[in-house]
Amino acid sequence: MSAKATFYHAGCPVCVAAEKTVATALDPTRYVVEVVHLGERKERIGEAERAGVKSVPALVIGGQAFHINHGADLSALRS
Amino acid sequence: MSAKATFYHAGCPVCVAAEKTVATALDPTRYVVEVVHLGERKERIGEAERAGVKSVPALVIGGQAFHINHGADLSALRS
Repeated sequence: MSAKATFYHAGCPVCVAAEKTVATALDPTRYVVEVVHLGERKERIGEAERAGVKSVPALVIGGQAFHINHGADLSALRS
Repeated sequence: MSAKATFYHAGCPVCVAAEKTVATALDPTRYVVEVVHLGERKERIGEAERAGVKSVPALVIGGQAFHINHGADLSALRS
Protein backbone atom coordinates (compact mmCIF):
# COMPACT_ATOMS: atom_id res chain seq x y z
CA MET A 1 0.00 0.00 0.00
CA SER A 2 1.23 3.47 -0.78
CA ALA A 3 1.69 6.06 1.93
CA LYS A 4 0.66 9.61 1.37
CA ALA A 5 3.19 12.39 1.05
CA THR A 6 2.16 16.00 0.66
CA PHE A 7 4.33 18.60 -1.00
CA TYR A 8 3.32 22.14 -0.05
CA HIS A 9 4.56 25.03 -2.15
CA ALA A 10 3.70 28.53 -3.30
CA GLY A 11 4.93 28.58 -6.87
CA CYS A 12 8.21 30.28 -5.96
CA PRO A 13 11.42 29.35 -7.83
CA VAL A 14 12.80 27.55 -4.77
CA CYS A 15 9.52 25.62 -4.59
CA VAL A 16 9.60 24.65 -8.25
CA ALA A 17 13.16 23.33 -7.98
CA ALA A 18 12.26 21.26 -4.92
CA GLU A 19 9.13 19.91 -6.56
CA LYS A 20 10.86 18.97 -9.81
CA THR A 21 13.79 17.33 -8.08
CA VAL A 22 12.84 16.06 -4.62
CA ALA A 23 9.08 15.51 -4.76
CA THR A 24 9.32 13.67 -8.06
CA ALA A 25 12.24 11.56 -6.82
CA LEU A 26 10.13 9.70 -4.27
CA ASP A 27 9.50 6.05 -4.88
CA PRO A 28 6.10 5.84 -6.66
CA THR A 29 5.61 2.27 -5.47
CA ARG A 30 5.63 3.47 -1.85
CA TYR A 31 4.37 7.05 -1.96
CA VAL A 32 1.50 8.91 -3.53
CA VAL A 33 2.57 12.55 -3.62
CA GLU A 34 -0.07 15.24 -3.48
CA VAL A 35 1.14 18.68 -4.56
CA VAL A 36 -0.63 21.59 -2.88
CA HIS A 37 -0.13 25.21 -3.94
CA LEU A 38 -0.87 27.10 -0.74
CA GLY A 39 -1.01 30.43 -2.55
CA GLU A 40 -4.03 29.16 -4.47
CA ARG A 41 -5.41 26.90 -1.75
CA LYS A 42 -5.33 29.14 1.30
CA GLU A 43 -7.97 26.98 2.97
CA ARG A 44 -5.28 24.32 3.38
CA ILE A 45 -2.76 26.54 5.19
CA GLY A 46 -4.23 25.45 8.53
CA GLU A 47 -3.77 21.78 7.69
CA ALA A 48 -0.16 22.43 6.71
CA GLU A 49 0.49 24.31 9.95
CA ARG A 50 -0.96 21.49 12.01
CA ALA A 51 1.43 19.11 10.24
CA GLY A 52 4.31 21.30 11.43
CA VAL A 53 4.93 23.21 8.22
CA LYS A 54 6.38 26.67 8.87
CA SER A 55 7.61 27.58 5.39
CA VAL A 56 7.41 26.36 1.83
CA PRO A 57 8.54 24.31 0.07
CA ALA A 58 7.89 21.52 2.54
CA LEU A 59 7.24 17.83 2.30
CA VAL A 60 5.10 16.04 4.87
CA ILE A 61 5.80 12.32 5.05
CA GLY A 62 4.61 9.99 7.77
CA GLY A 63 3.29 12.92 9.80
CA GLN A 64 6.65 14.68 9.84
CA ALA A 65 7.31 18.02 8.14
CA PHE A 66 10.54 18.45 6.19
CA HIS A 67 11.30 21.97 5.05
CA ILE A 68 13.33 21.90 1.86
CA ASN A 69 15.41 25.03 1.47
CA HIS A 70 13.38 28.18 2.06
CA GLY A 71 11.03 29.94 -0.29
CA ALA A 72 8.46 31.73 1.87
CA ASP A 73 7.08 31.60 5.38
CA LEU A 74 3.51 30.40 5.75
CA SER A 75 2.63 33.70 7.39
CA ALA A 76 3.45 35.47 4.12
CA LEU A 77 0.88 33.36 2.29
CA ARG A 78 -2.05 34.37 4.46
CA SER A 79 -2.29 37.88 3.14
CA MET B 1 20.69 4.14 -15.30
CA SER B 2 20.51 5.37 -11.75
CA ALA B 3 21.49 8.90 -10.86
CA LYS B 4 23.54 9.61 -7.80
CA ALA B 5 22.07 11.39 -4.80
CA THR B 6 24.17 12.26 -1.78
CA PHE B 7 22.71 12.72 1.67
CA TYR B 8 25.02 14.69 3.96
CA HIS B 9 24.44 14.58 7.68
CA ALA B 10 26.18 14.83 11.03
CA GLY B 11 24.38 12.27 13.14
CA CYS B 12 22.09 14.86 14.75
CA PRO B 13 18.45 13.96 15.57
CA VAL B 14 17.18 16.21 12.77
CA CYS B 15 19.58 14.45 10.42
CA VAL B 16 18.46 10.99 11.47
CA ALA B 17 14.80 11.85 10.93
CA ALA B 18 15.54 13.22 7.46
CA GLU B 19 17.64 10.22 6.55
CA LYS B 20 15.10 7.67 7.75
CA THR B 21 12.19 9.39 6.07
CA VAL B 22 13.31 11.43 3.07
CA ALA B 23 16.57 9.82 1.94
CA THR B 24 15.07 6.34 2.13
CA ALA B 25 11.92 7.47 0.29
CA LEU B 26 13.74 8.10 -2.97
CA ASP B 27 12.97 5.79 -5.85
CA PRO B 28 15.67 3.08 -5.79
CA THR B 29 15.17 2.37 -9.48
CA ARG B 30 16.26 5.93 -10.32
CA TYR B 31 18.61 6.95 -7.50
CA VAL B 32 21.56 5.48 -5.71
CA VAL B 33 21.79 7.32 -2.41
CA GLU B 34 25.16 7.71 -0.75
CA VAL B 35 24.98 8.69 2.91
CA VAL B 36 27.93 10.75 4.15
CA HIS B 37 28.48 11.58 7.83
CA LEU B 38 30.42 14.83 7.64
CA GLY B 39 31.31 14.69 11.32
CA GLU B 40 33.28 11.52 10.62
CA ARG B 41 34.32 12.37 7.07
CA LYS B 42 35.60 15.91 7.42
CA GLU B 43 37.63 15.51 4.23
CA ARG B 44 34.34 15.61 2.33
CA ILE B 45 33.13 18.93 3.77
CA GLY B 46 34.78 20.78 0.86
CA GLU B 47 32.95 18.66 -1.70
CA ALA B 48 29.65 19.31 0.08
CA GLU B 49 30.32 23.05 0.14
CA ARG B 50 31.13 23.09 -3.55
CA ALA B 51 27.77 21.40 -4.18
CA GLY B 52 26.09 24.29 -2.37
CA VAL B 53 25.52 22.62 0.99
CA LYS B 54 25.48 25.13 3.84
CA SER B 55 23.97 23.02 6.61
CA VAL B 56 23.04 19.44 7.36
CA PRO B 57 20.98 17.46 6.76
CA ALA B 58 21.11 18.11 3.03
CA LEU B 59 20.43 16.10 -0.07
CA VAL B 60 22.31 16.79 -3.29
CA ILE B 61 20.46 15.58 -6.37
CA GLY B 62 21.29 16.48 -9.94
CA GLY B 63 23.88 18.98 -8.79
CA GLN B 64 21.39 20.90 -6.64
CA ALA B 65 21.57 21.13 -2.86
CA PHE B 66 18.37 20.76 -0.87
CA HIS B 67 18.63 21.56 2.82
CA ILE B 68 16.11 19.53 4.77
CA ASN B 69 15.15 21.26 8.01
CA HIS B 70 18.19 22.42 9.93
CA GLY B 71 20.50 20.40 12.14
CA ALA B 72 23.88 22.12 12.05
CA ASP B 73 25.80 24.56 9.87
CA LEU B 74 28.76 23.16 7.98
CA SER B 75 31.00 25.66 9.74
CA ALA B 76 30.19 23.95 13.04
CA LEU B 77 31.51 20.64 11.69
CA ARG B 78 34.97 21.92 10.85
CA SER B 79 36.11 22.21 14.44
